Amino acid sequence: MSKTDVLIIGSSAAGLVTATTGRRVHPEKKITVVTKLTKTLIPCGIPYVFGSVGSTDNNILPAESMFEKSGIDIIYDEVVSINRDSHSVTLKSGEKVVYEKLVIATGSQPVKPAWLKGVDLENVFSVPKNKVYLDEMQDSIKGLKKIVTIGAGFIGVEISDELNKAGKEVYLVEKLPNILGLAFDKDISVRAEELLVERGVNLVTGRGVSEITGKGKVEGVILDDGTKLEADAVVLAMGYRPDSGLAADAGLPVNSWGFIRVDEYMRTEDPSIFAVGDCAEKRDFVTRKPSQVMLASTACAEGRIAGMNLFKLYAIKTFSGTISIFSTALGGTGFGVAGLTENIANEEGFDIVTGKFEGIDRHPGTLADTHKQFVKLIVGKESGVILGGEVYGGLSVGELTNMIGIMIQNRMAINSVLTAQIGTHPLLTASPAGYPLIKAAEHASSQIMFNHSR
Amino acid sequence: MSKTDVLIIGSSAAGLVTATTGRRVHPEKKITVVTKLTKTLIPCGIPYVFGSVGSTDNNILPAESMFEKSGIDIIYDEVVSINRDSHSVTLKSGEKVVYEKLVIATGSQPVKPAWLKGVDLENVFSVPKNKVYLDEMQDSIKGLKKIVTIGAGFIGVEISDELNKAGKEVYLVEKLPNILGLAFDKDISVRAEELLVERGVNLVTGRGVSEITGKGKVEGVILDDGTKLEADAVVLAMGYRPDSGLAADAGLPVNSWGFIRVDEYMRTEDPSIFAVGDCAEKRDFVTRKPSQVMLASTACAEGRIAGMNLFKLYAIKTFSGTISIFSTALGGTGFGVAGLTENIANEEGFDIVTGKFEGIDRHPGTLADTHKQFVKLIVGKESGVILGGEVYGGLSVGELTNMIGIMIQNRMAINSVLTAQIGTHPLLTASPAGYPLIKAAEHASSQIMFNHSR
Repeated sequence: MSKTDVLIIGSSAAGLVTATTGRRVHPEKKITVVTKLTKTLIPCGIPYVFGSVGSTDNNILPAESMFEKSGIDIIYDEVVSINRDSHSVTLKSGEKVVYEKLVIATGSQPVKPAWLKGVDLENVFSVPKNKVYLDEMQDSIKGLKKIVTIGAGFIGVEISDELNKAGKEVYLVEKLPNILGLAFDKDISVRAEELLVERGVNLVTGRGVSEITGKGKVEGVILDDGTKLEADAVVLAMGYRPDSGLAADAGLPVNSWGFIRVDEYMRTEDPSIFAVGDCAEKRDFVTRKPSQVMLASTACAEGRIAGMNLFKLYAIKTFSGTISIFSTALGGTGFGVAGLTENIANEEGFDIVTGKFEGIDRHPGTLADTHKQFVKLIVGKESGVILGGEVYGGLSVGELTNMIGIMIQNRMAINSVLTAQIGTHPLLTASPAGYPLIKAAEHASSQIMFNHSR
Repeated sequence: MSKTDVLIIGSSAAGLVTATTGRRVHPEKKITVVTKLTKTLIPCGIPYVFGSVGSTDNNILPAESMFEKSGIDIIYDEVVSINRDSHSVTLKSGEKVVYEKLVIATGSQPVKPAWLKGVDLENVFSVPKNKVYLDEMQDSIKGLKKIVTIGAGFIGVEISDELNKAGKEVYLVEKLPNILGLAFDKDISVRAEELLVERGVNLVTGRGVSEITGKGKVEGVILDDGTKLEADAVVLAMGYRPDSGLAADAGLPVNSWGFIRVDEYMRTEDPSIFAVGDCAEKRDFVTRKPSQVMLASTACAEGRIAGMNLFKLYAIKTFSGTISIFSTALGGTGFGVAGLTENIANEEGFDIVTGKFEGIDRHPGTLADTHKQFVKLIVGKESGVILGGEVYGGLSVGELTNMIGIMIQNRMAINSVLTAQIGTHPLLTASPAGYPLIKAAEHASSQIMFNHSR
């Protein structure tokens, strides 16, 4: 039996950041991480191991060296139970570890729907954050040609694009009318569709999958309209479920989707136990409803909050809800979103206007590598508060998305955006007079103004 | 004699944006722009006409078409006097134009120091925002080889880099110890110096110029330590002076540097007259002292405020001072700054800590085009408020600088940055666990925390 001040279960983004933040803020405490994985993958890089990054070996989170450098202990083992009465966990090896504070960062597992016939055939893969699995998958896929990806969320889109880049014949099947349809409004996802098709991925939208066929091995996929697609392999990209079994077994409350209930300091019902990352409950920053969006960047924000507040709430800083901020890229074009889409805002009953503008991301436009840049803002009609933003453009849209994220988190109103000072440079940004974010704000503002008939 | 509701003097960034904003907000008003220039240049693009952009014809602000499209009248003429009593201006042609509201957006002129011997020799150039001048300059320079640039602010640095790119032998002379020394702290400007030298520009820092030599034409430059540099041409990049003669002649107060005094709605002392852009007085957002920083992006923000508030102050939004935000690039490396540098914060007597972090701008770092990314934050020690930020890295730093600018304008404290949600993607940004902006905030935070010995 060993003893530690802080025990963290999991070494991916949430666990790692909780550990390093905890170390920074509590230099006197003993911090221990238990992980099943000898090598932890960079989560966002996983789709890219199939193309741009080459292999999982090029996509390792340097958790071990960061832990060593920071004086954080690692135990390579699996927690099989949490014993809240004795403030301890039991490991697979039989060993027990006593904690003062426990942080559950067990992450999520890919959905593998039991209702889908053929889901257990050879060459049906999912995309877990597991190096051993992904290495075997990459080996198996090597000799295969036709691949059907089921689900066009960002993992499905990214992996399809990368497999296509690696020379595969890829069909991407999505039952919603558009790819990335939960993340973006149609005006943006249509642009991603055009690009994906241009790059050689075959898109099948508006149709679900009813069966995976084959004898032993995958031979094809049957869609819900009867269409048959040939396939040597199937990649399931149908979402992720929180890995909260350990917590639930220990009697910690989980919500109806299986996320571990936490407060805004990331504390579970048990004052000694925190949960962070994909396994922890999230609320939407704007709607305040529970959210199912799982993102490494959200996990890191949660890890920082847990790490700072493990012993005392001196950093009076809470996790105020997810703004579902993320970005993706198809070749030289980036896409980003933060906060509510127009679709969701309407569904949730917000009274909104949207502001849109398409410009360019360098100036003058005669410069090489100039790319279109589009910004859409979703704005509360009475308050003028920015509820969400969507962008596409050149590769600078990743940080442009983050700028919009900061605006949303500060509950900035459109008036402040209109007069925001931004830095501009020919090779780095749009022009100051035609900066799409500000022009989109003007577009929104004009609608508010003239509706109010000032 | 003609009549207009709004008369704007100047068609560059400030005038243009005042006009288009005025049109958007006041669709019923007649708006007229008077300009000396038949073609207005994109101000930030000017250094690039000597290399990347090729010629001034590729760097035209589409002011005319924007005015036409918006129903804004243009008069190609020069205002010779403002007659406040009669609410009119007199043009060079003798014509008078009566206004209800007047906006002075006369910009700035390059400094051409009278004390500098040889400043009037042939092939001594400055960098005005004037197409005719720059075209002649580019023609004259074509056959010349050795060029000395005097002054290593960002215009001097950018033009030197572009002239070098265009095959010239360039010496850049700066009397301060470092290039970009007023804009950046030494740790950043040293990096820019290394790059500039690597790219082939010859740097001479810590030495001023005492004389330009030559008989009729430039032959050389003598530095204040006696060093002689051969030169076929000299480019003066010694700063700009506000062009406020018209305003001063009309009795409008100007400050000791010659900027037209304005309030935070950009109104001069005369309730019918506004001033915006390089000619208008600025205060520093943080120190509240008058500032001499002139930037197109600041000019645009001021133009938006003037345009919205021309007739009534319904948009209760003022210009709260310049955050001196700008960015520049040398090849694939961008540099950006917003708010106070460490140097200036210390000079101004702020009690600060600085947070620094160098990471990479993609993840994993095995991806092609991965670039180092460095972030430095200047933070109030007691308040935790972010007073400034400096960055360098790949080309995404333009928008990263803008994100820091938004933080400064929102007076965000470091605690909110620590837990900010950012979107991350392998091809677009740093990793969520190693995002330099947040890591720099942690670095600053640790210093505050342990100094306070919590």
